[in-house]
Formats: sequence, structure tokens, C-alpha cells
Amino acid sequence: MSDLAILKRRHALLGEKAPLFYEEPVHIVRGEGVWLYGPNDEKYLDGYNNVPTVGHCHPHVVDALAKQAGKLNVHTRYLNEEILNYGERLTATMDDSLSRAFFVCTGSEANELAIRIARCATGGMGIIGSDATYHGNTSTVMELATNRKMGGPKRKKSNVRSVPFPQMYRAPKGMSEGALAQAYAAEIQAAIDDFEKRGIKFAGMLVCPIFANEGLPDVPLGYFELMQQIVHGAGGVIIFDEVQSGFGRTGSMWGYENTGIVPDIVTMGKPMGNGHPLAGVVCRPELGDAFHAESTYFNTFGGNPVSCAVGNAVLDVLEQEQLVEQAAEVSAYLRSGLDLLKNDFDLIGDIRNNGMFFAVELVKNRKKKKASKKKPLRIVNMMKEKGVLISSIGADRNILKIRPPLPFTTDHADIVLEKLTECLIEVEG
Amino acid sequence: MSDLAILKRRHALLGEKAPLFYEEPVHIVRGEGVWLYGPNDEKYLDGYNNVPTVGHCHPHVVDALAKQAGKLNVHTRYLNEEILNYGERLTATMDDSLSRAFFVCTGSEANELAIRIARCATGGMGIIGSDATYHGNTSTVMELATNRKMGGPKRKKSNVRSVPFPQMYRAPKGMSEGALAQAYAAEIQAAIDDFEKRGIKFAGMLVCPIFANEGLPDVPLGYFELMQQIVHGAGGVIIFDEVQSGFGRTGSMWGYENTGIVPDIVTMGKPMGNGHPLAGVVCRPELGDAFHAESTYFNTFGGNPVSCAVGNAVLDVLEQEQLVEQAAEVSAYLRSGLDLLKNDFDLIGDIRNNGMFFAVELVKNRKKKKASKKKPLRIVNMMKEKGVLISSIGADRNILKIRPPLPFTTDHADIVLEKLTECLIEVEG
Repeated sequence: MSDLAILKRRHALLGEKAPLFYEEPVHIVRGEGVWLYGPNDEKYLDGYNNVPTVGHCHPHVVDALAKQAGKLNVHTRYLNEEILNYGERLTATMDDSLSRAFFVCTGSEANELAIRIARCATGGMGIIGSDATYHGNTSTVMELATNRKMGGPKRKKSNVRSVPFPQMYRAPKGMSEGALAQAYAAEIQAAIDDFEKRGIKFAGMLVCPIFANEGLPDVPLGYFELMQQIVHGAGGVIIFDEVQSGFGRTGSMWGYENTGIVPDIVTMGKPMGNGHPLAGVVCRPELGDAFHAESTYFNTFGGNPVSCAVGNAVLDVLEQEQLVEQAAEVSAYLRSGLDLLKNDFDLIGDIRNNGMFFAVELVKNRKKKKASKKKPLRIVNMMKEKGVLISSIGADRNILKIRPPLPFTTDHADIVLEKLTECLIEVEG
Repeated sequence: MSDLAILKRRHALLGEKAPLFYEEPVHIVRGEGVWLYGPNDEKYLDGYNNVPTVGHCHPHVVDALAKQAGKLNVHTRYLNEEILNYGERLTATMDDSLSRAFFVCTGSEANELAIRIARCATGGMGIIGSDATYHGNTSTVMELATNRKMGGPKRKKSNVRSVPFPQMYRAPKGMSEGALAQAYAAEIQAAIDDFEKRGIKFAGMLVCPIFANEGLPDVPLGYFELMQQIVHGAGGVIIFDEVQSGFGRTGSMWGYENTGIVPDIVTMGKPMGNGHPLAGVVCRPELGDAFHAESTYFNTFGGNPVSCAVGNAVLDVLEQEQLVEQAAEVSAYLRSGLDLLKNDFDLIGDIRNNGMFFAVELVKNRKKKKASKKKPLRIVNMMKEKGVLISSIGADRNILKIRPPLPFTTDHADIVLEKLTECLIEVEG
């Protein structure tokens, strides 16, 4: 069947505006490791997908899935050891204080639940997020979004506030890193003050510890410590959304390990089941108890034995193939290559990465740092034509996003660098 | 490992209040067809689980899952035929007007999305639910719940209203069925009037078409038609939550087929993937378009090729094993047996069923119809000891819930009847 015929069926079933990548969508029928394949065996290097984090269709994960699905798949209101074997192993990778687990199916559900836990535990309703974020697609977490079309309540009246995400790249000239951290932290205090002024009790702050959707900014040193002081000082809790930063992406198991602080609640999802709908919330036990005292929570599919077997298999592969270590090494290699590219192309304003998550920010002019408007999208489409899948990110979508499955090697990095160089020559030439 | 040791680990990881069934929880390690097994091969007839609807660990479903998981598991922003093959087949089982599909992972996500679609399409915020319902665990759908501990806003100020669920059993004496339908319908009109009075534009009504969580009441004839007239007349849409009533449970493919009306939006989940986290929303295309015009919606795992292959395999089994037809036949058989039991035991106040979903309402006194307080729970626990898993339901939890996987035969029904008779003799003796 032709792509056009498929597109027509898709429009009828899912609607014309159901999101699709690329000007001419890619048709994918098969995946293996870091490669995706089209119907005529067109081969694409996957430089985008963080969900199949241990590689597309990893045989160990598929085997675990099939084996447990053939044995038992049932909800968690019966006793079963799968959820314990997985949950204990998972929380053992985290700070000792983070020992209570809730299993759900999606990152949206995880962030929904984390907000409910924070609100129950603090008795407050006010939640602070960043001003260019996205934490999911339910009404409550959508309220935190600022860069998506949404029909939420007006900010002033609502229980959420946005603060500018911290960044070094567009910091005021001559400001020291410490002063910058202070300035961003002051915005958090101002949001808390505004809640107080309007009689809204503060519950906590929810951010991604690598500010992935904000464009992966370099965060001024000291910011997270100040955030923690202010949030805890006002009686709130810190929720880190590790849906993107967790499970080794950053070269550490958890994104929070590079922030200098330990959050009170961690949410996780995407890579957790390598594509199987598995997500979770891990928190301090007293927060979990406070939530349970106020609310019954049950998730039909969450924590079922199949999901837990899959989660365990993902941890197996991360360990056995030393993918977290590989992420640290290969990301350093790819970073060096991108830094060299920056020397050659003025279009590249800034390069940032957090392990195997790269942001290549394209600007019209390095001094003024204005976002390049059309070239980022053009490059994303050109890269696809050249057989490499990447995307763009940031409020202006001017930041190339490179975020491959973790089995990515230096050879794969070389392909990205080669094709990206070709694209930059073409758009700059 | 002993159950006590498992329970201790569970309390540490999930919290002491993480929900568990039965006074002494059941330890389950294996499932097959309508049977569940403990670690020492203790055998339980599953009279409860509607999620593994085509039978625990059905080999055809497991094969489809494993095969597609080994081939491709990726999000829906690339072209892929799996989602179309499944979605077209799924919507073909429904009224022609219901042709637009959204795929998500859980019933909560489906109801969340349905409410967002209703609100976008109507421009209103006001949603009406029943007064003994449960539609999921996100903040927005929790607002509709009345019988769960929750920390939502107060009703008067909020965007939701509850109306009494319709029922014949506790209807005022001497009232005709038609008058009763009118009386319940008048409550819907009153809720809409209250919205109007408070300046809240009406969006729609969200109910389960068999009122499953309300205790499966017999609904007075004409109620649904009146609901439709009133809701549509006020510019709202009707959302049927078919998370429990869909996929053949009622002896028809969809619960709405027995209501006399076609809803504007249908949500589905639990049995859809036989335990795989798969859920969806199907609606009139113009509602989907209105939503897309207002809002971007993307669900990372929703509609991935593995979920769609699983969904397709469930439809295969429903068709090949004629399970919908079997549900109609076996339910008639079980119903007859239960009706005979009612002759013998005054404790049984009312028996209701909708296909393979049974409600056996236990009362202190048939005339006064007061809920039996302790006996229902005792019987549920006794049935478990006798090797049959059932549960209880309703605001007073006084209604025995029998809702087995659909491969249930008359032989299995006989076991339920035999064990239930024993229990009734014991508690009444």
C-alpha cells in the first residue's frame, strides 16, 4: 500500500491533525537496535527515540515480555512477587530516601499522581513549573504547559505558576553564575509569594532535572540547591520529572544525580519499559503514606507482572551491556564532534548535552542569539532524507534534538556528524 | 517465600494501604483460561476479572504480542499500518457515526481525553455524572467520583454535577416505569439548569451504559432516550464509558447497543488488550476535529504497533471463539441458576445482570431493601476459600459482583452456583 493511501486511511481514522513527523512522513515497519526500516528496507539511523532505550525490539526484553505474558498478567490486588522484585531493584538504584513506589502506565499518569501526592502531603494546591515545559496530556498536568495549545484556566486564578527556566546561554551579560542562580531562584520565591497573596497554599515544584523540553539549558551552578532551600522553606516538595532524564540517558542512572540535590518525588516513564507502557512514581515513604491516608489509588494495568518483568529486563540490559557507561563515553565523543562543527558553522549558536541527549541551538546571529526560524526544520527534514532521524525542540523549535537509543556507538555518532555536516553546508552554502 | 514475607516486602515498597483483595490476600503466580493458580498450585476459578476477557494468557494474544514486540514498537508519529488495521476493524464494530479513534493506555486516560474533547467541542466545562460512579484516577475524572476518598473541589463551585443513577429496584412504590424514567431524567435537566444558573456552560454527560460501578441497576425503559434529548437539547454530548461494558461483556459487542441510543463519544479500556495497557476513545469525527482545532494531543505509548497487534488479536479471539455469543448464552444459564437461589435465600434482594456481569444484591430484609452490612464481604472471602474469586460492588458494597473472563462455560457457572449455595447456607444457617 502506498504511503499516500496509508495517509488517507490515517486521516479518516485519526484525523488530519493527528501529529506526524516530517514534511513527508516516514513509513516504518521494522526496528532493530539503533536502526529503523521502511517497507522497502529503507534504513534509518535512529537519532531520536529515547523510548526504545536499550535498542528497538531488544531480544532480552521481548523474551521477558513474552514469557511473563504467557504465565500471568493480572492486577496488583493479589500478592505476586514480580512487582516486588522489580520495585525493590528499581528503588535500590536511587537515594535511600526514595523507597516508596507507585506503578502506572504513562508519564502523564505518573505526573498526575505525583501532583496528587504533593497536594495531599502538603495540604496545598499551588504547583510551580517552568515556563517552557510539558509534563503530559491530562488536564491537570496540561495546566503546567505553556508551549502547547491548551484550554486550561487563566493563570492568575489557577493553582499553577510558571517561572523562567534557568539557563546560561541567554543570561544577561556580565552576570556571574552565582548571581544568575540567585536571580532564577528569586523567581521561584516570587511565585510562592504570589500564591500566598492569593490564599493558595503552596504544594511544590515540578521540573525536569535536565529541563529537556526547555531545550536542555546549562543550569547555573547553585540553582538546584537554592530551589530546594526555597521550596522546602515554604513547606513544599520537589518533584523531578525523570520521564526523559531517567534510566541512564544522562550518563548517570538518574538525572537528579547531576543536580546536587535529591528530590522528594521522582516520576519516570518513557524508557522504563523500552516501549511497553510502564511508568512510575517513587517518593519518600512518608509522602506515600500521607497520600494513602487521604486517597485510595488503584491503577488497573499499573505494576502488573508483565510490565514488571519488562522493567526488570530493561534493567538487566542496562547493566549487562553497560549502557549507562556507554552513554557517558559516546556522548563525550559526539559532543567533541559537534563542538568542532560549531567552529565551522556560525548557524550553531550553542551546543549543550546531558549524556546522550543533545541540543544544537541554531541562531541567526551568534551575538544577538535570535532563533533561526526555518533552517532547523529544514535540517531535520534533510537529515531524514539522508537516513538519520532527529527532531527539534525549544519554544522556537530552533534547537536540533539528538537523543538516540543508548546502544548508539561512536560509529553511529560519526554518521550523525557526517550527515549533519552535509546539511549545514547545504543550508549555509 | 511465605505470603507473610511477601506482604512485608509489599508494605515497605508500595505502602500498607496499597489496595489488596480479601481478608487474607491471595497469592497468584499463574493464569490460564478462567483459572488462576497459587504458588502451591492452589486453583481458583476466576469469577472476577474482566480484563483478561478472552482468558488469562490466551496463546493467540501472547503470540501476537511477542511477534510484534520483536518486529517494531514505536510511537504513532511515523506511518505504520498496524494502527489503521486495528482502528478500522474496531470502529467497524460500532455505529457508522463513531469513526474517529484516539488510542491511549488506560481507561483513566480515555475518560480524561473524552472530557477534553467534549469541552473543546461544546465550548462548555460542565460535566454530569452519576452519584455512585468511578471513571478513573486522574484529578479531572476523580472530580466525578462520589464514592471514593478524594480531595477535589467542592461540588457547587466545580464543573461537575452528580445525578442519581436510574434504577428499578429501589424505585418509589406504584410509580410506573415511564414515570420513573421521567423522574430520573428530570434530575439531569435540574443539573443543567444549575450549571446555567451559575454561569457554567454545559459540556456533556459521562456515564457507563450499564452503570457497572453503581451496581448494575435495571434502568427504566425510556431513560436513555430522555437523557439524549435533554443533553443534546442543552448543547451537550453524551460520553459512554464502555471501559467495563465494551468488547462483548454484555452479550453484545458494546453496552450502548442495549440502551436504544448511540452516544457521541465512547471510551474503552480494560478488556481491550486482555491485560496489555491499551485503551481508546472513539467519537464522531466532527468532535475529533473540534478537539484537534483547539488542542495538540500526543500519547507516547498510545496506539503503538504492539498495542494494536494485541488489540487485533483480542478481536480475533472474540470472533473465532464466538465469545460474545457465548457470553449471551452462559449468562442466561447463570442467571437462571441465581434466580433459583433467590427463591431459597431471603438474603438475596435482587439479581441483575448484563450479559456476563452479575450483581447479586444482598439485603437485610426484602421489603425494606436495606443493604446487608457484613455478609457480602464474608461471602466474598468464603468464596475465595472455596476456590472461587468474586468481589462486591455498590455504594454499600452489599452487591456480589460476578464478572468472569468470557470463556466461562456452564460448567464453570455450576461451580459458582454450588459454592455460592454453600456460602449462603453457612451465613444464613
